[in-house]
Amino acid sequence: MNTHYQFQTADKLIAGIGVFTELVSHLQKAVPSVERVLIVTQPFVKKLDFYQVMTSSLEKAGLSYEVVTDVEPEPTEANIENIKERVRDSSYDVLIGLGGGSVLDSTKLLSVLLSNTCTIQDILGTDLVKEPGIPTVLIPTTSGTGSEVTPNAIVTFPDKELKIGIVSRHLLPVLVVLDPLLTVSLPKPITAATGMDAFTHSLESFISNKANRFSDMFALESIRLIADGIQTAYHDGSNVEAREKMLIGSTYGGMALTAAGTAAVHAMAYPLGGKFKVTHGVANSMLLPHVMAYNMDAIVDRLAQVADPMGIQLNQGATSQQKAKAVVQKIKEWTAEFSIPQDLTEFGVREDDLEDLAIAAVQVKRLMDNNPKEMTVNDAIQIYKKLLA
Amino acid sequence: MNTHYQFQTADKLIAGIGVFTELVSHLQKAVPSVERVLIVTQPFVKKLDFYQVMTSSLEKAGLSYEVVTDVEPEPTEANIENIKERVRDSSYDVLIGLGGGSVLDSTKLLSVLLSNTCTIQDILGTDLVKEPGIPTVLIPTTSGTGSEVTPNAIVTFPDKELKIGIVSRHLLPVLVVLDPLLTVSLPKPITAATGMDAFTHSLESFISNKANRFSDMFALESIRLIADGIQTAYHDGSNVEAREKMLIGSTYGGMALTAAGTAAVHAMAYPLGGKFKVTHGVANSMLLPHVMAYNMDAIVDRLAQVADPMGIQLNQGATSQQKAKAVVQKIKEWTAEFSIPQDLTEFGVREDDLEDLAIAAVQVKRLMDNNPKEMTVNDAIQIYKKLLA
Ligand SMILES: NC(=O)c1ccc[n+]([C@@H]2O[C@H](COP(=O)([O-])OP(=O)(O)OC[C@H]3O[C@@H](n4cnc5c(N)ncnc54)[C@H](O)[C@@H]3O)[C@@H](O)[C@H]2O)c1
Ligand SMILES: NC(=O)c1ccc[n+]([C@@H]2O[C@H](COP(=O)([O-])OP(=O)(O)OC[C@H]3O[C@@H](n4cnc5c(N)ncnc54)[C@H](O)[C@@H]3O)[C@@H](O)[C@H]2O)c1
Ligand SMILES: [Fe+2]
Ligand SMILES: [Fe+2]
Repeated sequence: MNTHYQFQTADKLIAGIGVFTELVSHLQKAVPSVERVLIVTQPFVKKLDFYQVMTSSLEKAGLSYEVVTDVEPEPTEANIENIKERVRDSSYDVLIGLGGGSVLDSTKLLSVLLSNTCTIQDILGTDLVKEPGIPTVLIPTTSGTGSEVTPNAIVTFPDKELKIGIVSRHLLPVLVVLDPLLTVSLPKPITAATGMDAFTHSLESFISNKANRFSDMFALESIRLIADGIQTAYHDGSNVEAREKMLIGSTYGGMALTAAGTAAVHAMAYPLGGKFKVTHGVANSMLLPHVMAYNMDAIVDRLAQVADPMGIQLNQGATSQQKAKAVVQKIKEWTAEFSIPQDLTEFGVREDDLEDLAIAAVQVKRLMDNNPKEMTVNDAIQIYKKLLA
Repeated sequence: MNTHYQFQTADKLIAGIGVFTELVSHLQKAVPSVERVLIVTQPFVKKLDFYQVMTSSLEKAGLSYEVVTDVEPEPTEANIENIKERVRDSSYDVLIGLGGGSVLDSTKLLSVLLSNTCTIQDILGTDLVKEPGIPTVLIPTTSGTGSEVTPNAIVTFPDKELKIGIVSRHLLPVLVVLDPLLTVSLPKPITAATGMDAFTHSLESFISNKANRFSDMFALESIRLIADGIQTAYHDGSNVEAREKMLIGSTYGGMALTAAGTAAVHAMAYPLGGKFKVTHGVANSMLLPHVMAYNMDAIVDRLAQVADPMGIQLNQGATSQQKAKAVVQKIKEWTAEFSIPQDLTEFGVREDDLEDLAIAAVQVKRLMDNNPKEMTVNDAIQIYKKLLA
């Protein structure tokens, strides 16, 4: 465990079932001078009651707002730059991002792109954003990326066939609203994939080389909440209690990864997204058990510690080895239960592609450096190969 | 448990043994335009190596600094206003508070007093600070108040014989440095009293009417760390590992209380501080077991949950009642082991004084409202009476 570490998060979080209705009063506290609001979202939101509640409470408070709904899932550079060009001549006091990780990441990037004279190209990497952005309020509707509390945003580059991360403290919001009611409309496959993504954040943070007291606390509590909620949330999406566990578990996952970083699962997921449009959660869920099995000898003790928070019951004398194996087994059972794809050929991946994928994965050094076991291009090829039927 | 809750903390935390040496580089990131620094501290600090390390690294970085060392323990209104008058004509880019809760609270208040045209009188209470203050960096040297991560500051009013809290998000720092090396010089009695204060923050947050998922997580982890470290830290102050547990435990205690609030122990401690100069940690330690015993019937289940994190081993079939009692018993054992005073007459309190003390305590509504069991003036008198030999 690392003895030196950092922690940084959103300025303020409000949480609770129905807390969404208090958005405007908290917004006015967080940004006292607020008059003009840009809402960044996707079309799904317009069908939902809470969208009307939000817009009418903005109106009642005398705030003017405009809405952008054309954020693409796993947004590309062009998508975000286009939106920026369209809104750049208006001046907003705050951006509200209402949606999944795709919307939240886009909102965070628009915030800094509008206040800095720069393009996405200029800020790819860590700490390259110069000035603070327009204040953002982030309201996740998936559980999820944890993007609402991380200084990260991920952009897709279709021409380079890559997904690349931008990391800057200026991407953190002034306010986060965590309301599980906003997630009950998630369809089963998205509940599963985004939930497994959240779980991956916590598990990867827990086994990360940069794991530390802060990240461990958030990671273990997140693992406990997600393991407790994910099956119910999947099978009975209207169960608000399970949705609440997933949402808080996902936010804690974001806090864990901010303090410790994700590792090889995420590094290997990015090229699958960039090149074959495997969505982020699906790519992670597919890879998670196999990467953990690969890492096994380096992380037996850590994985064993996760058995109890995951609710895995073994007999008294179980060894660390047995506990760790049970953890990987449980993850496999989940992916089967949630009908998560197991075969990359469904996405057009052929054996010939594996080397390029592996090279790209190993190049995501920011994340690979966190992995507790070194991974060569050949190791990565072997792991991808397990996902070819 | 509350389902609606908020969380807000310092912009950034860095932690670790020896992390203090990285202060200046983090400071320059947090406040890019920094040139002039005001260090707020107390005389004890000048004898310590790390003070020289800090000042020479400020010089090396070309930053100019001034130092104020006359913060009194448990500072009075006059003490803080005097310092303000003395430094108000200089303009600082950042204030560094290096010390215990007394120093940190003073630094936080100076920050907002210097940027707002107001006096302490104007901001007594909650959310009355209008404008953000000068950015602060808070470096605790006790474990402790958790003040480095709370939006609170406590001021003593000797004429009113009271201690009063000021609560504002503008009191939160831009950077917190958690280095256990800064706490090894704490003398035994201060290790004990401040450690018990930290423990009280977490236990009171855990049983608070406003307890919630966030506060519970921090409170339980804090309880675990403090229970694990407090005896070693007391008996062998140079044990850095134990000091580290205490420091992180204390910071988590601050996070817990920010999310859930303290309760009757703190409400009853304030008048003891205001009128009889019983230091904050000592007053809390004296009151803690007795207030928990008073609350007992309302909090059996919650107290029982604390037994395990406190490392209390009971036989398998132990009831909640038994566990809860063992928790109170353990607290009593600690206060005896740490030679914490048990008798208020040592501080000049007489039976005649109890009614005034109790009236003042019950008037601290902000905290009494969090107590799981209502407390009348008479109830409070009975509790104080247990502390008269
Ligand atoms: N910033 C970070 O720290 C971080 C971490 C992990 C992933 N990411 C990025 O986040 C993106 C993925 O985000 P995601 O997994 O949340 O998916 P997403 O935002 O792409 O959403 C998935 C789908 O669900 C829909 N949807 C969202 N909320 C809904 C709701 N409440 N009801 C019905 N439909 C809803 C969306 O419209 C979309 O079609 C990827 O680009 C990924 O790389 C970022
Ligand atoms: N803001 C909050 O959230 C909050 C919470 C609880 C208490 N408080 C307030 O904090 C104050 C108490 O703070 P405290 O308990 O940290 O005590 P303190 O700051 O008064 O310090 C106690 C004594 O220890 C000395 N000291 C501090 N660090 C030392 C070190 N490393 N080595 C040697 N000596 C050292 C100090 O000079 C002082 O004499 C009270 O006014 C209390 O009301 C604030
Ligand atoms: Fe992810
Ligand atoms: Fe306290």
